[in-house]
Amino acid sequence: MTNLSNKTCEVCRVGAPQVTQKEIDSFKPLIPGWKITTVEDVNHLNRVFKFNNFIEAIAFTNKIGDLAESEGHHPAILTEWGSVKISWWTHKINGLHVNDFIMAAKTDELLK
Amino acid sequence: MTNLSNKTCEVCRVGAPQVTQKEIDSFKPLIPGWKITTVEDVNHLNRVFKFNNFIEAIAFTNKIGDLAESEGHHPAILTEWGSVKISWWTHKINGLHVNDFIMAAKTDELLK
Repeated sequence: MTNLSNKTCEVCRVGAPQVTQKEIDSFKPLIPGWKITTVEDVNHLNRVFKFNNFIEAIAFTNKIGDLAESEGHHPAILTEWGSVKISWWTHKINGLHVNDFIMAAKTDELLK
Repeated sequence: MTNLSNKTCEVCRVGAPQVTQKEIDSFKPLIPGWKITTVEDVNHLNRVFKFNNFIEAIAFTNKIGDLAESEGHHPAILTEWGSVKISWWTHKINGLHVNDFIMAAKTDELLK
């Protein structure tokens, strides 16, 4: 399995397939800090990142913002004093696409 | 009633009083776009702001961040494509302080 974070999001249209369980089993070990949660029947990939203060948190929020714009795929970002929670999912298919796993891996890379 | 947004947050310590219903009745008409919601028994002041894209949303997030740092009072900011949800409350008292109404009014001012 190649490094997820080196991949680029593919164009995702309504009706594109969600990731299969086999794909999840393959991708998930590459992003161990992320959890799959279900909100109103829609799966999301979530991770909370901790920081020392608000300024560091919002700086990370902006890094995620730049990444999201560059890939044309946008998460929900919950910024609070000392923490940023990122949720990736694909609105067009109401669930998880391979793009979301790629973006989770790229998110992890931003901290390195 | 003077303009809430012209006020400055006071220092808030553990044990400080939450806003009274009389204060809420006085402040709430000054910030009509905000709703009080209760999450796990803690009241929050929430408002969702809509934008045309992700860049505008994250630009507003940064304005809120600057405001929060300048006042030393920090909200939860949920940034998504085209929207920013702001939640003000006071962690130290697990509820709403007059500061939160001041910050909600200052948040509204940022859009003017």
